[in-house]
Amino acid sequence: MFPKNAWYVACTPDEIDDKPLGRRICGEPIVFYRGEAGRVAAVEDWCPHRGAPLSLGRVVEGRLVCGYHGLEMGCDGKTVAMPGQRVRGFPPVRSYPVVERHGFVWVWPGDAELADPAGIHQPFWADNPAWAYGGGLYHIRCDYRLMIDNLMDLTHETYVHSTSIGQKEIDETPCNTRSEGDTVITSRFMNGIIPPPFWQAALRANGLPDDQPVDRWQICRFTPPSHVMIEVGVALAGKGGYDAPAEFKASSIVVDYITPESETSIWYFWGMARNFRPDDAELTATIREGQGRIFAEDLEMLERQQANLLQWPERGLLKLNIDAGGVQARRVIDRHIAAERAGSPATALA
Amino acid sequence: MFPKNAWYVACTPDEIDDKPLGRRICGEPIVFYRGEAGRVAAVEDWCPHRGAPLSLGRVVEGRLVCGYHGLEMGCDGKTVAMPGQRVRGFPPVRSYPVVERHGFVWVWPGDAELADPAGIHQPFWADNPAWAYGGGLYHIRCDYRLMIDNLMDLTHETYVHSTSIGQKEIDETPCNTRSEGDTVITSRFMNGIIPPPFWQAALRANGLPDDQPVDRWQICRFTPPSHVMIEVGVALAGKGGYDAPAEFKASSIVVDYITPESETSIWYFWGMARNFRPDDAELTATIREGQGRIFAEDLEMLERQQANLLQWPERGLLKLNIDAGGVQARRVIDRHIAAERAGSPATALA
Amino acid sequence: MFPKNAWYVACTPDEIDDKPLGRRICGEPIVFYRGEAGRVAAVEDWCPHRGAPLSLGRVVEGRLVCGYHGLEMGCDGKTVAMPGQRVRGFPPVRSYPVVERHGFVWVWPGDAELADPAGIHQPFWADNPAWAYGGGLYHIRCDYRLMIDNLMDLTHETYVHSTSIGQKEIDETPCNTRSEGDTVITSRFMNGIIPPPFWQAALRANGLPDDQPVDRWQICRFTPPSHVMIEVGVALAGKGGYDAPAEFKASSIVVDYITPESETSIWYFWGMARNFRPDDAELTATIREGQGRIFAEDLEMLERQQANLLQWPERGLLKLNIDAGGVQARRVIDRHIAAERAGSPATALA
Repeated sequence: MFPKNAWYVACTPDEIDDKPLGRRICGEPIVFYRGEAGRVAAVEDWCPHRGAPLSLGRVVEGRLVCGYHGLEMGCDGKTVAMPGQRVRGFPPVRSYPVVERHGFVWVWPGDAELADPAGIHQPFWADNPAWAYGGGLYHIRCDYRLMIDNLMDLTHETYVHSTSIGQKEIDETPCNTRSEGDTVITSRFMNGIIPPPFWQAALRANGLPDDQPVDRWQICRFTPPSHVMIEVGVALAGKGGYDAPAEFKASSIVVDYITPESETSIWYFWGMARNFRPDDAELTATIREGQGRIFAEDLEMLERQQANLLQWPERGLLKLNIDAGGVQARRVIDRHIAAERAGSPATALA
Repeated sequence: MFPKNAWYVACTPDEIDDKPLGRRICGEPIVFYRGEAGRVAAVEDWCPHRGAPLSLGRVVEGRLVCGYHGLEMGCDGKTVAMPGQRVRGFPPVRSYPVVERHGFVWVWPGDAELADPAGIHQPFWADNPAWAYGGGLYHIRCDYRLMIDNLMDLTHETYVHSTSIGQKEIDETPCNTRSEGDTVITSRFMNGIIPPPFWQAALRANGLPDDQPVDRWQICRFTPPSHVMIEVGVALAGKGGYDAPAEFKASSIVVDYITPESETSIWYFWGMARNFRPDDAELTATIREGQGRIFAEDLEMLERQQANLLQWPERGLLKLNIDAGGVQARRVIDRHIAAERAGSPATALA
Repeated sequence: MFPKNAWYVACTPDEIDDKPLGRRICGEPIVFYRGEAGRVAAVEDWCPHRGAPLSLGRVVEGRLVCGYHGLEMGCDGKTVAMPGQRVRGFPPVRSYPVVERHGFVWVWPGDAELADPAGIHQPFWADNPAWAYGGGLYHIRCDYRLMIDNLMDLTHETYVHSTSIGQKEIDETPCNTRSEGDTVITSRFMNGIIPPPFWQAALRANGLPDDQPVDRWQICRFTPPSHVMIEVGVALAGKGGYDAPAEFKASSIVVDYITPESETSIWYFWGMARNFRPDDAELTATIREGQGRIFAEDLEMLERQQANLLQWPERGLLKLNIDAGGVQARRVIDRHIAAERAGSPATALA
């Protein structure tokens, strides 16, 4: 169960630079490619001629050419041409609203008439030269909501990421969770603690001492359908914490776009945005590699958790204070799904 | 859905020279082996003792000995002996009509009483010293009819095999399709064209120039249950095309025996018969290698097409002029299946 | 179908020395670990917080700590603690009776109230310094009863293990099968035969000639739920056979503990106990390696037999004299299953 009337990240632009990309989004097999003038396009991954996947074809002058018998598909899902054929009567395939923005390709797998690009997630750091972004993609066999739970309850860092960003104080410090309309915010502030290895390295990278107490913060923001942005950082203790001047802190934004592939699998676009040394490509690569290693630690846990839930579908899960972020996020999601089914805007149900 | 009262290629003789071979044909798990005097035999791959697959056993003096407890199976599906046992009351397993002919082992998975070896496909080139044959076997996860479609519509060469036998003129030249009883013939003649790489090499192998215009032909013949023989060739332009004297042309016969393993998988016996330099074993090997590489290009397309059809079972496929060969072949197949169900010979329904 | 009110081997102690072990036993996903004072513990592999498998966690001071968010599970299935939480109301998970004994960890997957450690299989050779034991574990995708059949009918040695322990005389010599309460015993005595390679090596290891006729014996003992102990050996011919003085023979006990994982898969704990050179660790390793190689020969046969039985579920199997051991063992098993369902002790139905 996922909202379909929503913008999801489908892929990164480089994934469709050379060739079409077949990817299932919210259960829909879709081919993404660059159509006329390099504009992104998305249609069902089905050739109306014999059912071959169009993603096995290639793009010629903005037309997607089926790799089986040469049917040329237009960005609107209507066949443009086919050698030796009149194609007027060919049945169209579905086309999907798709937009390239902020370094991602966004797709709307639901009712195309409701798709408004204004609703695409707007990261404040995107298109801002003071910021740099690096990230990657993981395919994980779990319900997308398990990943939202994961990101909205960072006490798991103490256990899953014990050698990098985890530390006992995360567990010991209560979090605060609140909703503002469709946004769910859960935050934790840990003051006067010793930074764990990841943050020690970040402090060094910022020219700050790594052996002194710091104030550390984690502010997770969920917005529908399934985006989680997390402000994370440390400041030398007593300098103002989250509000400390830039010269005393190291901070960044963990970016998580979670796209359901099916009911039990996701495309997980993870990354990090930072506003220090934004032009240092080597640093971007180093951070991405480190983050990729840390985030890979979640994969087995999530897939095995999913397997357990399928094994015992009747069992309920506890909803503790630390789970409030995930619980409230699910409420927002449920409201959107209900609204979609009722044919009314989700805001009306808020 | 496939006719079961038909002769299919089960394997090549070398596959059973050393040991029994277990292979599922039209949904039937069968063990093939050499029985008395080396004659091929085929029985259910099931030991009546404890259900072990007989194909894990070995052949001793023409008897198939179960590899688990030594039951000796006869070619007729009746147990011959078992150490320390009286076997008269042992339940028989099914035996299948099977014939070694033309370099293949043929099996009849349906009603044994109707099996007449006279109905085995008779390639005119077989057992003819002026001709040579080389080929191979691919296992492909697709409905056998998708492979028939593939072979009866060669416009796919332009896209799937663009670097070897494909060329634009295939698309541009209409084909002609007709049925003669159970045989479906679709043919295409392209005159005055530049030969693609595969045919350039063939011309050179025949001592002919490879940089001159040629007349090229493709004549596909489907016969039930699922054989497709394709006459292919090129002649120097203006020398008579298909009817040109041998000294001006290079030609061969593409041999395709398609055996259903299940509703959605096949054993695909492919090969090429040629009537030039028939004793040149090295040439046979070279051609086989090249053909194997080209035909491997179809695998992903067919398997992904099959997956798409399973994803959208309610969707129809277009039946264009280029599809006429496959469409008419399916009509023949449907007629045979209907006849089989009605218990009457297919010819009566023709 | 398997008895659940029974003691099964779950693992060997070394498998839980460093970390928890997740293993499915009789369909139950269980985590095994060392709790307080190193005592073995077994609880459902499910964290009551969010359903993560506890086996991905670690053990800290005898408590199983969930690797996701740090819940601490007690050996009784009750949550002991969780950072920042009151855990009194947390739903318990199931705990299983579990005992470490005779070099194995034994689990009772059924009704805990009926579990009496006195019922754990007592190998006479265990905890006896005159004996040595070595063994291993295989995972096999077959019904556990197929493995019991396999071990209670050793005529398969002639075919499956033809190069090591098999010989024609096994087939030719009738076996004798009888039941004593829940124990099923099938035995075979072959006198004045040439020893096969495995036994030639064993004779040499005992300082005996390997080129003389021997008397060979095989005495298989099944006890429920699924243990098979096999006394095997050879004595120089005419010295008394099974009852010959130790100086004239080589013998050992093949140990088989078969634990159902699911209806169609098992954990197969195999090994060999011997009462010669018990302190020779190198010999133990050599024997284990040889036995492992021989027993691996059964895997494909059993898995393919299982696949055949699933393919033809309606087909019966023959019950010959050689199958009497397996047939009688199944009767004992069926009696236990029926008793379990009726809620009465199996002995009452004997």
